[in-house]
Amino acid sequence: MTPPAVILSQPQMGENVGAAARAMKNFGLTELVLIAPKMEWPNDKAQMLASGSGDILEAAKIFPTAVDALAPYQLVLATTARGRDVVKDIHTPEAGARRLRAASNEGVRTAILFGGERAGLDNDEMSLADAVITIPTADFWSLNLGQAVLLLGYEWLKSADNTPAVRTRPSIAKPASREELVGLFEHLEKELDAAEFLFPPAKRETMVRNIRAMIMRSRLSDQEVRTIRGMIVALVRNKYRGNK
Amino acid sequence: MTPPAVILSQPQMGENVGAAARAMKNFGLTELVLIAPKMEWPNDKAQMLASGSGDILEAAKIFPTAVDALAPYQLVLATTARGRDVVKDIHTPEAGARRLRAASNEGVRTAILFGGERAGLDNDEMSLADAVITIPTADFWSLNLGQAVLLLGYEWLKSADNTPAVRTRPSIAKPASREELVGLFEHLEKELDAAEFLFPPAKRETMVRNIRAMIMRSRLSDQEVRTIRGMIVALVRNKYRGNK
Repeated sequence: MTPPAVILSQPQMGENVGAAARAMKNFGLTELVLIAPKMEWPNDKAQMLASGSGDILEAAKIFPTAVDALAPYQLVLATTARGRDVVKDIHTPEAGARRLRAASNEGVRTAILFGGERAGLDNDEMSLADAVITIPTADFWSLNLGQAVLLLGYEWLKSADNTPAVRTRPSIAKPASREELVGLFEHLEKELDAAEFLFPPAKRETMVRNIRAMIMRSRLSDQEVRTIRGMIVALVRNKYRGNK
Repeated sequence: MTPPAVILSQPQMGENVGAAARAMKNFGLTELVLIAPKMEWPNDKAQMLASGSGDILEAAKIFPTAVDALAPYQLVLATTARGRDVVKDIHTPEAGARRLRAASNEGVRTAILFGGERAGLDNDEMSLADAVITIPTADFWSLNLGQAVLLLGYEWLKSADNTPAVRTRPSIAKPASREELVGLFEHLEKELDAAEFLFPPAKRETMVRNIRAMIMRSRLSDQEVRTIRGMIVALVRNKYRGNK
């Protein structure tokens, strides 16, 4: 499975190409292609900004035209700023990344095409793309080249990432058993009764229920239950000392 | 509805704070808070990188400690590099953004906490966060501060973005009716018959079916059907001329 190539059309600033390479490295993209770069190449500023992803810059391929650069690819998605009038399907970055992933998994050679800093992609370039990806931004704002590559790289990695949306606590901790929790409840309630905190009796049941709910919500580990019971013991001991 | 504050703990480089401000602006975040910045403030390099989001830098609030900085917030999510051993729920950026969005919609004051370039967040800072967000990256890579703020801002905007995953063609174009499509099919097939392209007869039916499928797949507008029929007329005319 080959990840999508990142193809930058007529980039003007070395910094942006360097930032793009760094962004690629972060998310497992490796193939960088430049169409008619409007800068010296190799480029010192690109090297500086690439910090650790210089190998991507060194392997970058340069072509004079979009037709040459795009020749080997079978699925090309072009990124454009919002609202551009195109006669192609427009994907969110997430949907675009999923489409690229599905194609790559089937052995299709894929690429993401980014326009230059000023002018974006011209109509000839757009006509070579299968479809378009538009990154949502706040009104009147648009992303620079490095930022756009970063977000597409991020969505590319995400498209194969099975990390659950929320992982609760590190797996090393053992959730407390009901027995341990009930032990804690009863220990705490015994001391609160002794301290006349659960008062008046008519409200005791509700107060106990609320305290138990509060404790349940924090999904304690067995170790944490022991820690809290130790705290209760210590607090009670100090109280008696204070009363001496 | 107030968007989450972006809180940077002990940032060291003005460039990163500027890039963070620019990233915030892109996605509609406005409130920037710095904890004990390890740089001059105001900062020239921050201004340079902020390009157009200087208002966010000027309104930034500075606090000496995390306790002071986080005081007003009711839901604080801390970003950490992958794999850090924390005893808190770990969210993907997407799930974290949804949680922040839901809380903000209910009037809860929310914040996203980012560690400094070198050390990240210390244990005292982590202890003030409700939960953790971890951004997935390729192995052995991590994001810089500006990149991390960009991705969280992006997910924040996305969490309220109802753009369909794929928008097919601009809405201005009217999809061709079945009548128009059938008109095109019959026109094309008549000319192909005349040109003896649909040959031998035993294969005609399959060939016609494949050609029709190919045309259907491109989901033509009414205008495009007219264009193609014009192309057929023109091609046929040229052929007869060529044969003269």
